[in-house]
Amino acid sequence: MTLPGIAQLDRGRVCAPESAALSEAFARVRDASEALAAPLTAEDQAIQSMPDVSPTKWHLAHTTWFFETFVLKPYAAQYRVFDPAYAYLFNSYYEAEGERHPRAERGLLSRPSSGDVLRYRRHVTAAVHDLLTKADQQIRNRIEPLITLGIAHEEQHQELILMDIKHVFSKNPLRPTYRPPASAQQGGREADPVHLGWKSFGGGLHEFGHAGTGFAFDNEGPRHRVWLDGFRLASRLVTCGEYLAFMEDGGYSRPEFWLSDGWATVSARGWAAPLYWERDNYCWKIFTLRGMRALDPNEPVCHVSFYEADAYARWAGKRLPREEEWELAARTVLLGGNLRDRGALHPLPASPGASGALTQMIGDVWEWTASAYQPYPGFRPAAGAIGEYNGKFMANQMVLRGGCAVTPPDHVRITYRNFFYPDARWAFSGIRLAEDA
Amino acid sequence: MTLPGIAQLDRGRVCAPESAALSEAFARVRDASEALAAPLTAEDQAIQSMPDVSPTKWHLAHTTWFFETFVLKPYAAQYRVFDPAYAYLFNSYYEAEGERHPRAERGLLSRPSSGDVLRYRRHVTAAVHDLLTKADQQIRNRIEPLITLGIAHEEQHQELILMDIKHVFSKNPLRPTYRPPASAQQGGREADPVHLGWKSFGGGLHEFGHAGTGFAFDNEGPRHRVWLDGFRLASRLVTCGEYLAFMEDGGYSRPEFWLSDGWATVSARGWAAPLYWERDNYCWKIFTLRGMRALDPNEPVCHVSFYEADAYARWAGKRLPREEEWELAARTVLLGGNLRDRGALHPLPASPGASGALTQMIGDVWEWTASAYQPYPGFRPAAGAIGEYNGKFMANQMVLRGGCAVTPPDHVRITYRNFFYPDARWAFSGIRLAEDA
Amino acid sequence: MTLPGIAQLDRGRVCAPESAALSEAFARVRDASEALAAPLTAEDQAIQSMPDVSPTKWHLAHTTWFFETFVLKPYAAQYRVFDPAYAYLFNSYYEAEGERHPRAERGLLSRPSSGDVLRYRRHVTAAVHDLLTKADQQIRNRIEPLITLGIAHEEQHQELILMDIKHVFSKNPLRPTYRPPASAQQGGREADPVHLGWKSFGGGLHEFGHAGTGFAFDNEGPRHRVWLDGFRLASRLVTCGEYLAFMEDGGYSRPEFWLSDGWATVSARGWAAPLYWERDNYCWKIFTLRGMRALDPNEPVCHVSFYEADAYARWAGKRLPREEEWELAARTVLLGGNLRDRGALHPLPASPGASGALTQMIGDVWEWTASAYQPYPGFRPAAGAIGEYNGKFMANQMVLRGGCAVTPPDHVRITYRNFFYPDARWAFSGIRLAEDA
Amino acid sequence: MTLPGIAQLDRGRVCAPESAALSEAFARVRDASEALAAPLTAEDQAIQSMPDVSPTKWHLAHTTWFFETFVLKPYAAQYRVFDPAYAYLFNSYYEAEGERHPRAERGLLSRPSSGDVLRYRRHVTAAVHDLLTKADQQIRNRIEPLITLGIAHEEQHQELILMDIKHVFSKNPLRPTYRPPASAQQGGREADPVHLGWKSFGGGLHEFGHAGTGFAFDNEGPRHRVWLDGFRLASRLVTCGEYLAFMEDGGYSRPEFWLSDGWATVSARGWAAPLYWERDNYCWKIFTLRGMRALDPNEPVCHVSFYEADAYARWAGKRLPREEEWELAARTVLLGGNLRDRGALHPLPASPGASGALTQMIGDVWEWTASAYQPYPGFRPAAGAIGEYNGKFMANQMVLRGGCAVTPPDHVRITYRNFFYPDARWAFSGIRLAEDA
Repeated sequence: MTLPGIAQLDRGRVCAPESAALSEAFARVRDASEALAAPLTAEDQAIQSMPDVSPTKWHLAHTTWFFETFVLKPYAAQYRVFDPAYAYLFNSYYEAEGERHPRAERGLLSRPSSGDVLRYRRHVTAAVHDLLTKADQQIRNRIEPLITLGIAHEEQHQELILMDIKHVFSKNPLRPTYRPPASAQQGGREADPVHLGWKSFGGGLHEFGHAGTGFAFDNEGPRHRVWLDGFRLASRLVTCGEYLAFMEDGGYSRPEFWLSDGWATVSARGWAAPLYWERDNYCWKIFTLRGMRALDPNEPVCHVSFYEADAYARWAGKRLPREEEWELAARTVLLGGNLRDRGALHPLPASPGASGALTQMIGDVWEWTASAYQPYPGFRPAAGAIGEYNGKFMANQMVLRGGCAVTPPDHVRITYRNFFYPDARWAFSGIRLAEDA
Repeated sequence: MTLPGIAQLDRGRVCAPESAALSEAFARVRDASEALAAPLTAEDQAIQSMPDVSPTKWHLAHTTWFFETFVLKPYAAQYRVFDPAYAYLFNSYYEAEGERHPRAERGLLSRPSSGDVLRYRRHVTAAVHDLLTKADQQIRNRIEPLITLGIAHEEQHQELILMDIKHVFSKNPLRPTYRPPASAQQGGREADPVHLGWKSFGGGLHEFGHAGTGFAFDNEGPRHRVWLDGFRLASRLVTCGEYLAFMEDGGYSRPEFWLSDGWATVSARGWAAPLYWERDNYCWKIFTLRGMRALDPNEPVCHVSFYEADAYARWAGKRLPREEEWELAARTVLLGGNLRDRGALHPLPASPGASGALTQMIGDVWEWTASAYQPYPGFRPAAGAIGEYNGKFMANQMVLRGGCAVTPPDHVRITYRNFFYPDARWAFSGIRLAEDA
Repeated sequence: MTLPGIAQLDRGRVCAPESAALSEAFARVRDASEALAAPLTAEDQAIQSMPDVSPTKWHLAHTTWFFETFVLKPYAAQYRVFDPAYAYLFNSYYEAEGERHPRAERGLLSRPSSGDVLRYRRHVTAAVHDLLTKADQQIRNRIEPLITLGIAHEEQHQELILMDIKHVFSKNPLRPTYRPPASAQQGGREADPVHLGWKSFGGGLHEFGHAGTGFAFDNEGPRHRVWLDGFRLASRLVTCGEYLAFMEDGGYSRPEFWLSDGWATVSARGWAAPLYWERDNYCWKIFTLRGMRALDPNEPVCHVSFYEADAYARWAGKRLPREEEWELAARTVLLGGNLRDRGALHPLPASPGASGALTQMIGDVWEWTASAYQPYPGFRPAAGAIGEYNGKFMANQMVLRGGCAVTPPDHVRITYRNFFYPDARWAFSGIRLAEDA
Repeated sequence: MTLPGIAQLDRGRVCAPESAALSEAFARVRDASEALAAPLTAEDQAIQSMPDVSPTKWHLAHTTWFFETFVLKPYAAQYRVFDPAYAYLFNSYYEAEGERHPRAERGLLSRPSSGDVLRYRRHVTAAVHDLLTKADQQIRNRIEPLITLGIAHEEQHQELILMDIKHVFSKNPLRPTYRPPASAQQGGREADPVHLGWKSFGGGLHEFGHAGTGFAFDNEGPRHRVWLDGFRLASRLVTCGEYLAFMEDGGYSRPEFWLSDGWATVSARGWAAPLYWERDNYCWKIFTLRGMRALDPNEPVCHVSFYEADAYARWAGKRLPREEEWELAARTVLLGGNLRDRGALHPLPASPGASGALTQMIGDVWEWTASAYQPYPGFRPAAGAIGEYNGKFMANQMVLRGGCAVTPPDHVRITYRNFFYPDARWAFSGIRLAEDA
């Protein structure tokens, strides 16, 4: 997801909730973003540690710019623009909205300060509330879908804020922590290993993609038919211990497990372990939002690229699931798990489930699928700037499903299609195995 | 198709023809490769104009190395290796076969000379014929599928020889010709424009991929079911004249038509026209294997990338076909067209067909599809070096269908899946439009 | 000056002033650095806008690390290290002092904060004062030269702080100002042009380089003899108006004026004007530490590379002076000019001098010479970490002389050799012409 | 010497020999170039193994283009241009002579063939001879200096032909030989080590640079005075055995020996030995124009960069000589040595000389000096295309002196200034130590 801000934004197809609920949801998402930034200093919020990463304050400003640009400017007659220069600084990708500050230079902006950005947020938040209160029904019909989309957009950036600050802190030799380490009680004892079982699904012609009236991004539709052969899905995620066995079997030095492009990437970048793993003599440690700590072999492996997930699966004699297989299977589980509200901010070891039942489908890590990110049959981008880029990212990326430990709980749907380039590792991305029936 | 030699090679699933026919087919393909090189000087055959391109003599040697490595060394007890150093020089990708000369340095090899390579070819060709004559039935059963695969492999390299030498010559300010320009009688008169019609296909659950006993590469299988909605396919390819209208409408400067990665590519490389187009005052000229000549607005546009094909389709309000749509449609046409045997060595203007009938499906240009190159459901690579890389290229590339003006006629199948990176332009690749029914 | 901190540091040969004066000089330089940072926010102080630039707080910490490492740790028995991690973070180049944080990643450090750095400074400043007060004579003899060197080192970083923040602010579309624009009274009226005269110097065998007892960096010595032929030096710097005439005569598009490497640089980077110049319709504006403003044709051209200075001189039918010519000529002028204490923070138009008298020799802009930065005959680096890199930078760089508008006044000497790569433009560097007699 | 053709060419100041002698010298140099190419195949002559290297046939054509462009076109009224396209293909750098084929693409030209180039040579050679025979005195006065310059220019390219083909062959795993290995008698026995002595020179004011009537390039003048302090020069070159001691003492892994830019180069390119050295178990081998062979510890180290030469000298507690020191010392030796006519095509071990006498000053290897390549005082480029680039290369390069084992004997002068970038290693470049008296 090179340009996540936009991607998310643009792909929305929107169904408005009721108005009071919308106002509350809007307030909640605005507060939540600011709460995520609260543990960070002004300097923390300004850093861009690689081109894919954006500074925290950029996320805070860009999500605000969205409401200002698509809701306030067109529909709030009395609205006074906070600062005309922000349109240039905080547009992420919208060609129809004019020129943009170069993505790779977001970390060069000491001004506006994080204080300025907070004032900008409050200015816009108040104006949206004001508009929601005073607008007539005709305007409400126009803005409610846009605000709903803006909320979903801001939720995505909340996940990016945590992904990105993790990367920023990882580049600092002092290794700052975003949140203090869990107490011994919370997480100190190492979990017991959980048996990996397989759940079978029969073949047939099924419908996939978003249907019904709730909100979904436009890339989740239209609803369409796909034939699936029978398949089996692993009952839990691949663990760090299992991944270590792959590493110890020469996983990173044996080309036979890798896609050609994957092997070229491994060679060029010198990968020998997942991102954020560090070897300390005989012991692997990992960097988390709660600081450096020893690796738990029973926790799910995280921060692997698609190439690594695919190579692991080949080494294990299995494969990754297709996105439709995952979606079909997810219909059998409850829509909860280790998401951001749990507070772990890192995937957790599986709990023993019923024999062969699927666990960890929602939350913990985004699960790489075998499916290239492509439009569903019949997909058409919406008109105008909102829809300008609906299909812009449908090349060279792979679909991930399920949400992760830093995903806002409201943001999860089983039709949700996340996507990243196959070499990306800074998302909380992991592996679930599949096999033919 | 970064590493076409291997890719093709590795993905073979093989069914042997009868022995006498095999011997003849083998002789024919070996002669044909040498005939392709005949118009070229020793210096021409040594040039590598970019990393994707291989020198002609490398192709001649690599296809020979294939028979030596996979047929003669294992099965011809008396076989004397021509030169042990060649295993290093002419292995393209087979990890199981040991280290290889770096791909990007193939143009640094003045030795072995093209004369040496020809001697190598004759040594191996004779040894294979000898083996085919003398082998007992058990050996025959082993080598016949391998020779069949080697023939298909060599046919692919024949196409690459022509693609590659075209690129080599295009980099020479003297603009050498591979073959003399067609006489006025042959190609002098500009064709009449042909109306673009649409042919409709109904939806349903269909089977796709190779079935039956003839030879096919392994990526063409297994046969599997896919649901298709109804669709329409354009009756002919997009012409240069139509593509010029896209260009004149600002096609290369308006980001709204482009995938995000496509726009980044256009910007970085300064693309403003297809490869091999040159502006000469008010007039467009193109470089062909028969030299520079004026553009014919009625000939199919060629040497466009997937990004350009996709942008053109969006500009035209249409889309590219899915590979299954193309395959379904191709069942309605005869398996012939403007292939290498026609001698044009360039796509030709469409002839008027029956109203709405599909033309130019086979030959002229490889047609970009909207489908990412991915394994078919149930696909499994074969064991051993032959199968080592069967799935190696199934990431980041797009499927093309149909063959082109430099494809050997024996090499065409409607299940054939060609593939290139979305930014590749040196293949003879073009555009056919599709739309939803 | 790729790694200015070290370079300067290392090349010191040191003669200590009297103790009380030293204590005062130390206090003055420490205060001055903090005063330079005072107008900047914490976020401003963290930005690295290109690898050559360091964040303000890095300069503040690195100059402190110098005193901690070379004075306190070896000589202050009771000294408590402020934070052991800082040795890694704030070492600039000293191999003998162990591993260092990568230069290009200095902008990724949100921690330590600028507040932490200020506490670090006060901790070290107090400890040095304490040591200076309590040390016996033997220790004094050791530390006084080191403190003298540390003061010169910190003065150099003071100049870098201003050079670097100018670059940082220039990358921000909001174009922050370091100091408010001068009032109309101060600088509003455009200066009158001043005639460019020539001052002649006879040839002969002269001595150059530092001699005597005052402090100098080691690259300024040893004193040595050089034969000079007669020459003439321009009475003032080249102005923006004169440089514009070069530009309007096709200066940036005519290879005949350029060194081969210079032309390659111009072509690769698309240079068409000095750094910080921007065209606003028909009018040139420049970015200064006091904000954007109209160009004054009579002010000295600034922020040109050696390549541009050399090309300008060739266009003008002149040449750049050799560093010995400059040094000989500078003996005829007083050691003052538009330096940092003047407060302009930008070069100023020349004042009419006596006919043919040299003006602007000290301050305004560093003057590119025709001399490659090489060791003087007999130069030998000092032993140990302090002297480890004395000659490290004596390749591929060019000497500049004279100081500039952001140089601390105490820091100027006529034997002073500044040096930068010939493509560097972010220093306050300009042009004085010379010709053979 | 990135662009040697031009550089050499352009810097000529010319004094014509007598006419008959000139005609003979011209014939000799033209024949010699062709004789150098005679052992090479057409394919060998077309390869460009890195941007610094040019194909043999390019050298053969470019030296011919020089005579056609600067002698025949202006002065031979009846001359018929051989092929107008060659002006574009074989111009190396002359901006005044119009556009040029990009240097890095010289290896993409299979056409013109080496046969075409030979025909071009003979056409031009005959025309120059014809002109020399028939021209009246006025024309002779114009062309004789140009032909003299063209001869020197072609001699330089003869050296480049051998440097370049060595690099080309080194990139071929078959390691072709340019000339068969020397027989045991010629070179089989390892030489005895020769004691390294020191020869002293007193200080004083001396004149340097070309004087008198013989031919010299313009960068060798004007004659000018330089003051030198007393110094000592090593009696012979640094040997491979001595260089190995540096390597075994950690020379390539200890930054304290290296210039900052040198250390960055070593790190980025992974240098651990001179170019063309290869480790074969416990034994070092080197690639020569006569093939791979064991290293002789007593032969001079060759194919080191300036950075390596400088680091070696620092390790050894010495320094490199200044170019004037070398020139002063060279006045004491005879102008002969191991040059191309000796046939070794590689530096040879020193012979024991008189105690402290200088050996190996001429030939064997170009000796890196401590002097940056800069214009001598009073240097002015000549007018017009011939002189267009006289000073173009006077930045970022270092001077080498003395000639090497592939230098034509006629081409050596003690005022001769060769120059290369400090990271260049494909010239036959080595090390002589110096120290202060």
